Amino acid sequence: MNIDFTFENPTRIHFGHTAMQHLPEELKRYGKNILLVYGRNSIKSNGIYNVVMAALNATGKAVFELQGIKSNPSYAQVLAGAKIVEEKKIDLILAVGGGSVIDCSKGIAAAANCQGDPWQRYWMQGEAVEHPVVPIGTILTMTGTASEMNGGSVITNEEKMIKQGRVFPTDTFSPKFSILNPEFTYSVPHYQMVSGIFDIFSHLMEQYFSGDDDCVSDYLLEGDMLALISAARAAVKNPNDYEARSNIMWCATMALNKILAVSKRQDWMVHQIEHQLGAYTDCAHGIGLAIISVPYYKHIYRYGLHRFVRYAKNIWHVDASGKSDEQVALEGIECLSRFIAEMGIPQTLREVGTTEEMLPLIAKSCNKIGGYHVPTTDEVLQMLKECF
Amino acid sequence: MNIDFTFENPTRIHFGHTAMQHLPEELKRYGKNILLVYGRNSIKSNGIYNVVMAALNATGKAVFELQGIKSNPSYAQVLAGAKIVEEKKIDLILAVGGGSVIDCSKGIAAAANCQGDPWQRYWMQGEAVEHPVVPIGTILTMTGTASEMNGGSVITNEEKMIKQGRVFPTDTFSPKFSILNPEFTYSVPHYQMVSGIFDIFSHLMEQYFSGDDDCVSDYLLEGDMLALISAARAAVKNPNDYEARSNIMWCATMALNKILAVSKRQDWMVHQIEHQLGAYTDCAHGIGLAIISVPYYKHIYRYGLHRFVRYAKNIWHVDASGKSDEQVALEGIECLSRFIAEMGIPQTLREVGTTEEMLPLIAKSCNKIGGYHVPTTDEVLQMLKECF
Repeated sequence: MNIDFTFENPTRIHFGHTAMQHLPEELKRYGKNILLVYGRNSIKSNGIYNVVMAALNATGKAVFELQGIKSNPSYAQVLAGAKIVEEKKIDLILAVGGGSVIDCSKGIAAAANCQGDPWQRYWMQGEAVEHPVVPIGTILTMTGTASEMNGGSVITNEEKMIKQGRVFPTDTFSPKFSILNPEFTYSVPHYQMVSGIFDIFSHLMEQYFSGDDDCVSDYLLEGDMLALISAARAAVKNPNDYEARSNIMWCATMALNKILAVSKRQDWMVHQIEHQLGAYTDCAHGIGLAIISVPYYKHIYRYGLHRFVRYAKNIWHVDASGKSDEQVALEGIECLSRFIAEMGIPQTLREVGTTEEMLPLIAKSCNKIGGYHVPTTDEVLQMLKECF
Repeated sequence: MNIDFTFENPTRIHFGHTAMQHLPEELKRYGKNILLVYGRNSIKSNGIYNVVMAALNATGKAVFELQGIKSNPSYAQVLAGAKIVEEKKIDLILAVGGGSVIDCSKGIAAAANCQGDPWQRYWMQGEAVEHPVVPIGTILTMTGTASEMNGGSVITNEEKMIKQGRVFPTDTFSPKFSILNPEFTYSVPHYQMVSGIFDIFSHLMEQYFSGDDDCVSDYLLEGDMLALISAARAAVKNPNDYEARSNIMWCATMALNKILAVSKRQDWMVHQIEHQLGAYTDCAHGIGLAIISVPYYKHIYRYGLHRFVRYAKNIWHVDASGKSDEQVALEGIECLSRFIAEMGIPQTLREVGTTEEMLPLIAKSCNKIGGYHVPTTDEVLQMLKECF
């Protein structure tokens, strides 16, 4: 490890079958007015809504609702929530859902009581939030983003056609508490489940594929990847396998609560491309990441060959004997590609609603960052064509 | 993962060459009266004392000192510190040292303002601490225990000849901040360094060797073990290798800040035996753990054979082809034994001041717990004889 860091993560996690029993004790820490944020109807059909409302009623809360949060939460929804926070003097935002709902809730907390244009100030210019921030609590029903234990908020400004992530400070924006019951994810359909799984896997790879030092975080990232692969295979076979679903849920939280990122150079270019894919299509985030990853890594592995060799050996158990480093590295990327197919994830952009005309627009509009290599617009376009 | 858990860890970590620069901003969060707790003279000879005093003076603090904390901190020292906290109305306990100094500081925070006998109430009976607890900050100069990011406090009651650990609640007893500069550990002599390394390794193994489920934490524990082995070998070759020392420091914190323990059945019997060894001798904690581990694991591996096979393969890369599970497991323990020798750690109790008469006393007085197997007094005595 050779990069200095400050780390803190104050989120209290309640995890397991009995996690929801902690909701009343958590609610008692906050004032009366609650903004309940959620997506479409799934929390009503699976009964979670009723359990949450019972706890809110039992603790004497006044509940205001913002529902219908989209899978790429929109800036318009952020503003609608911020208006409720200001008008109703909200004491706690309770997000019930997946990363989209939680990201939107952080956006609401930032936008409420902001002087000026929150989009410009917080997402585009990355300014510090100086006004008091309403606390957030979460009940997780879909796993992938780790938004339940970090300060990240990815919002899509539909008017401007920009999907932009912001990492807000942990001490104010990270959820104060998060309730994680793996059983709540049983009802997530296969397509959303594997999208979540690949989102997690991508978070781990984006952090792993950079840096040349011997760094504890890389070993831990490998551990989380291995745990995820084992659990993903079990969950695909039996979606109601509690052990598998709980492992996936915790792999997700660990993958992006920043504890595995300390002292790490990182990449995140796959996410940059996918964010713009998400701005032009309604492609599920993890599916987009999976499609882009294979051509991306095939383009950049030569710049970080040693790490791609390590990845092939440690994650996919590629037998290196008698092979060149280049062969071993490519075999590792091939294993990744086979894993994506094994999960039943589409492997072309065409299948997720992308048109050929969109490719240059996505290539041009995405931020250009990187780990071992920062790609040009032309290189990104080439990658997109290879998975079109 | 199949055991429900609640996890929180609010300690803010400042890590790296520049970590000490954060001390003034941290000190400003607290009142005027500081109790500075440290060991013998090493922080004076290596200059850390002067840097700390300069920051304390620059922020206008009144400093009261408690020095001479022993490597097995004594209950008498806890009481001496508690007296200062009460009399001087201390606002922050600043612990500068290793696990002993930090454990002692938590003991002081518990004992100060306690009604009744703190030893009986908090260490022997495990009662909740209900009085307000003085916050603790730490500057780490020796690595191993992770006391810088947990609520643990192991204290030796010299009068009663009992060394007893207590895990206090994280939200009140974990350090509010910890400053970790790997360079501060350069001056730790080889013997203390390898003692710390094995303390870390033992923490990881005590958490790893229990449970039969597929559990994310086991994969992460393996990652931390692999990182530690790599860093330990580099640090033994060159004690001033920053990368190696920083990896060891962070491996230590991760090994016992509880994030790798979530949902884990655990063992901790090696620590129980070593605690009583520490009560009868002045053996360095990690050295004692190393000596006891090999006979202990040779006695219990049959009860958790699958896990010892996994350990041999994943940690020591034992080639399992053509071997029975039993052979693979034993080969793994043999690798551990060779690693202990490679670190230059003594391998017999005789070498660390134990007499034959002490063996039955240690075997009888240690708590009997365990992971795959809970040993009897006779079994512990047999283990002690095998490494005498």
